[in-house]
Amino acid sequence: MFEMKERAGLGRIGELRTAHGVVETPALMPVVNPSNLVITPKDLARMFGVQILITNAYIIWKSADRQRFLDEGIHRALDFDGPIMTDSGAFQQHVYGRVEVSNEEIVKFQAAIGADLGAVLDVFSEPDDSRRRCEEAVEETLRRTRDALEWRGDLGLVGTVQGGLHMDLREHCAKGLSDIPIAVHAIGGVVPLMEGYQFADLVDVIVASKKGLRPDRPVHLFGAGHPITFGLAVLLGCDLFDSAAYVKYAQDGRMITAWGTTRVEGLAHIPCSCPACHDATPEDLRADTERLAQHNLYVSLQELEVVKQAIHEGNLWEHVERRCRAHPSLLDALKGLRDHVDFMERYEGLVGGTLFYTGPESVWRPVAHRFRQRLLKRYSPPRVEGVLILPEARRPYTRAYSKLLRTLFERANAHAIVRSAFGPVPVEFDGVYPVAQSVVPDDLDLETVEASEVLLRQFLRRGYFSQGVMWEGEDSLEELSIRAPGPSATDMDKQRAEALANYQFGPGAADALLEGEVEYVKSKKTQKIRNVLVDGDHVLSMRARDGLFTLKLAGGKRLHKALPAPKLRVVVNEESSPSNREGKNVFAKFVVDCDGELRPLDEVLVVSETDELVAVGRAVMNREEMLAFERGVAVKVREGSPLL
Amino acid sequence: MFEMKERAGLGRIGELRTAHGVVETPALMPVVNPSNLVITPKDLARMFGVQILITNAYIIWKSADRQRFLDEGIHRALDFDGPIMTDSGAFQQHVYGRVEVSNEEIVKFQAAIGADLGAVLDVFSEPDDSRRRCEEAVEETLRRTRDALEWRGDLGLVGTVQGGLHMDLREHCAKGLSDIPIAVHAIGGVVPLMEGYQFADLVDVIVASKKGLRPDRPVHLFGAGHPITFGLAVLLGCDLFDSAAYVKYAQDGRMITAWGTTRVEGLAHIPCSCPACHDATPEDLRADTERLAQHNLYVSLQELEVVKQAIHEGNLWEHVERRCRAHPSLLDALKGLRDHVDFMERYEGLVGGTLFYTGPESVWRPVAHRFRQRLLKRYSPPRVEGVLILPEARRPYTRAYSKLLRTLFERANAHAIVRSAFGPVPVEFDGVYPVAQSVVPDDLDLETVEASEVLLRQFLRRGYFSQGVMWEGEDSLEELSIRAPGPSATDMDKQRAEALANYQFGPGAADALLEGEVEYVKSKKTQKIRNVLVDGDHVLSMRARDGLFTLKLAGGKRLHKALPAPKLRVVVNEESSPSNREGKNVFAKFVVDCDGELRPLDEVLVVSETDELVAVGRAVMNREEMLAFERGVAVKVREGSPLL
Repeated sequence: MFEMKERAGLGRIGELRTAHGVVETPALMPVVNPSNLVITPKDLARMFGVQILITNAYIIWKSADRQRFLDEGIHRALDFDGPIMTDSGAFQQHVYGRVEVSNEEIVKFQAAIGADLGAVLDVFSEPDDSRRRCEEAVEETLRRTRDALEWRGDLGLVGTVQGGLHMDLREHCAKGLSDIPIAVHAIGGVVPLMEGYQFADLVDVIVASKKGLRPDRPVHLFGAGHPITFGLAVLLGCDLFDSAAYVKYAQDGRMITAWGTTRVEGLAHIPCSCPACHDATPEDLRADTERLAQHNLYVSLQELEVVKQAIHEGNLWEHVERRCRAHPSLLDALKGLRDHVDFMERYEGLVGGTLFYTGPESVWRPVAHRFRQRLLKRYSPPRVEGVLILPEARRPYTRAYSKLLRTLFERANAHAIVRSAFGPVPVEFDGVYPVAQSVVPDDLDLETVEASEVLLRQFLRRGYFSQGVMWEGEDSLEELSIRAPGPSATDMDKQRAEALANYQFGPGAADALLEGEVEYVKSKKTQKIRNVLVDGDHVLSMRARDGLFTLKLAGGKRLHKALPAPKLRVVVNEESSPSNREGKNVFAKFVVDCDGELRPLDEVLVVSETDELVAVGRAVMNREEMLAFERGVAVKVREGSPLL
Repeated sequence: MFEMKERAGLGRIGELRTAHGVVETPALMPVVNPSNLVITPKDLARMFGVQILITNAYIIWKSADRQRFLDEGIHRALDFDGPIMTDSGAFQQHVYGRVEVSNEEIVKFQAAIGADLGAVLDVFSEPDDSRRRCEEAVEETLRRTRDALEWRGDLGLVGTVQGGLHMDLREHCAKGLSDIPIAVHAIGGVVPLMEGYQFADLVDVIVASKKGLRPDRPVHLFGAGHPITFGLAVLLGCDLFDSAAYVKYAQDGRMITAWGTTRVEGLAHIPCSCPACHDATPEDLRADTERLAQHNLYVSLQELEVVKQAIHEGNLWEHVERRCRAHPSLLDALKGLRDHVDFMERYEGLVGGTLFYTGPESVWRPVAHRFRQRLLKRYSPPRVEGVLILPEARRPYTRAYSKLLRTLFERANAHAIVRSAFGPVPVEFDGVYPVAQSVVPDDLDLETVEASEVLLRQFLRRGYFSQGVMWEGEDSLEELSIRAPGPSATDMDKQRAEALANYQFGPGAADALLEGEVEYVKSKKTQKIRNVLVDGDHVLSMRARDGLFTLKLAGGKRLHKALPAPKLRVVVNEESSPSNREGKNVFAKFVVDCDGELRPLDEVLVVSETDELVAVGRAVMNREEMLAFERGVAVKVREGSPLL
């Protein structure tokens, strides 16, 4: 059973429950070779805080230890109390061409030795396998996974996505596995990609698999043991990793770092202060394989803590963009994410701290993509005489700049748009996440400058501004200021509120929310809107942190009346609605349906199956997740709608 | 006394000798506040391996402890055996507007308490100080530094470069300080730049200072205590750092990381495994300021070890390019390095491992700049019917690609140039550092693609290829192959050797080196040239690692005869030449003069003051360094020229 606790897009911090305890994900499972324990399982738990480990059931099955594992059970045989995953021999099939065990034998064996999680004997596809061959491997893998249900006992099954580099087969395999009641999904056949630095292909494979996999099960990226890929894989929704690398690299005299690998024979300084490295000399690491293995494990585990903290702080993208500078092939993988932005955007719910631009790739983060898409689809500019295009500024919306725009807006009947690295920004959005919270270099690279120009033209071409004159640059300000005065400050509040309402809730929302006598309660200090009252009712608030509206119950009622289902709706069953009416959160298992346009952190209407408004709140999941998850909060309710 | 042990351009690993021991640089000096010891000096040495610390003499002078420090001496008073640097109160002048001590008083006090290194009371310039004011500050600083000579006793003086943001004043101040016999140079007035994230200005200030400073003294970047800037500052030639940040940040609840700062109240995971963090919970770090300060110091010291190892491995540029993605203002600073590439190139001697492209900034590394400059100045293409421009490849010179080019070259009377991210590469250079050892992404960003095109046109415009037809792309190969056959394989070796000889040693070198009966000894496996014999003499070898020639004595004799002084010469005095003739290295203190065009790692002719050839070898320093340094090797001699 898996629960999502925190998220950053597809990336998540979760809890995986097993009979031997709870694992916090993303988690690294050290590979333990029972016949050659470089670090004992007991020490893995005690010294390294390892929560779960993985070993190879096929190797045990083939060894002299087989009977001992059957007699004692795997936990006693390995002297480890926590959850244990076992592998089936599928990887040995890749290495040696064949295995001597059947799916039935190995699944039954894993159940018999009492593994918590055990892999079906999937069929490994090589990256250069033909489509035909991969199809066969996928169908056989699916058949074996279904077969395994019969023999599993208490074993949580691990079902592996295969399909080689045929992305439609990956997605097909993943969909097939989603329909089978297993515990963990794995993505297999990727070790050759990592060995060959084919990280762009690895990204495509993970995304194709994730597209087909149901989102409520943890995903194990088989064989990814080097921390160089952890951040990227977590960003794409991988939850479990296994590392044999910590030992294998050490035995080969290689020191793992978060940005690569260093041969210990070339070590003159110790670029680490983990318990194994602190006080160590280069000679110590050269002479002591166990110590080097300890370092390799510490640095690998540490990278996952860095990743988790980045999820928690809301800067996982920045972390991944930095880490992808570790190798040009990782940079290719990062650039390749642009191809998947539409899929990733569905899961994006990031409202973090400041957005840091790290390079031209930053412009294509899902959060920026969504901003542009919603502007294009949901925003209508005011009818004015013309539009002024202002140059990009480092922080487009510093207070001074904002004041300049306000003056312009109040004194001339014109509209203004600012070029930004992330795309054009109409003046109404001068405080809105993500652009208002972004920091970009003064000196932007050519690719971003051109992208910004293309995005601006695309935006203007949609015809919004065809009605007026277009001025470029700050020099035009004087020309504008001699024109007839434009809307008043109050009109500007109105326009800002209308623009934002439609942007957040869709076309028509502004008319519904703001019909009547509107009062804007503003911050004395910043003159920014804080609350919106209509006919005396508190309809909307504005969060200072991201400049976005939060929905009050009175606002929810207006939207519910004006916008037809399924717009903005999260439909809950009868078991849930009474507590939601009392203001309690919506749990995913009670969700019947959900508007497919909603994204994590969007404001939502919680309704009954007969479309009565039950509450307003903020989504934590998207539609796919609400319908799949059995555990966890789907909507954080802000205000319930009590039955009168 | 300072000695350079290893280098990466301006960056260096050095040894600073003091009466209380040797310090390996780059080094971080923790700031110790005697009246509030968060970590005792003893623990700094014992737990953290700190070699040198810094404290503020002005604060001690003002305190009740003054007499105790005078009586006991600073080493006993602080209970620290190693070298101690003291500051003068100049920074307090910045913070409080004035100080209550005179230069004479504070210099004498520092000498009296027995500090190893002590700062002159320089005049702090603010970033927005006028030119006039900065001029006065610089002149007063220089006057005080000269004055201090009288009072210094055994104190090694620290003289600080001021000048605000007026770069010519910075250089002028630095030149003035270079003429005064002090021990350490410092760059001051930079804390406001770091506090304001003005890292691009910081880069300009460091470079302007370094241009004026003699290279044989260590350079202390005053107030740079956050590891986020260490790599960049070392790359620009800074050797010493001081950190009060480890304590101050801790007292303010901030955890330092190599990529930024995290508030401990927002800490949910521990992104570190240093001795202070290993086993710690977020709550531990929130509750225990000392523990947090320990972490902050561990992570700061660790970053310098990472930097030193990067110098040792030859990938400091990659490290800095990655770290500069920590903040958009650091990215601006990285982009700003392009303005200083000519200065940096003079010090560049990097032949490391593989060159990793991390973004459009990588194209402007000094090592790539030198490659392009030397091609433009020293390379003459063969007279052929035309030139084929081939598209860039991921690794431009994979074996297959190389074979294709060779075939083309042998079968058609044409020449070929490959576009690369780093600039155009004539076919003769298909194994030469840095392009042949570079890895770039498949998907290059627009800025690099355009830069590559501009560089190609610039190269072609020089007229080299005006004599022939120009073909573009691989499609032209067929057209070419039906033309008359071109030079034979032997001719190709000849052309390759000629091109490379002129590229490395300058125009005319090929004629001098290769006149006579030439034999190319080639690798059986790769068919690459290994040795060049002329008239039976071994003239040149080729290093497999970087595809460059090394000079044998017979070759040196030919160059010495053909190229007039000072070309390629390092002139040594009479004391040195006998041992150099025996094959011993040239030490900098014996160098009388040096060709200003030579760069670290260039092949050189060691000659006597009467221009007799004494030895051939490889430079370790450039001219400025050879003339300045009193310690260290200037030329690694390969072969001496014994007196007959």
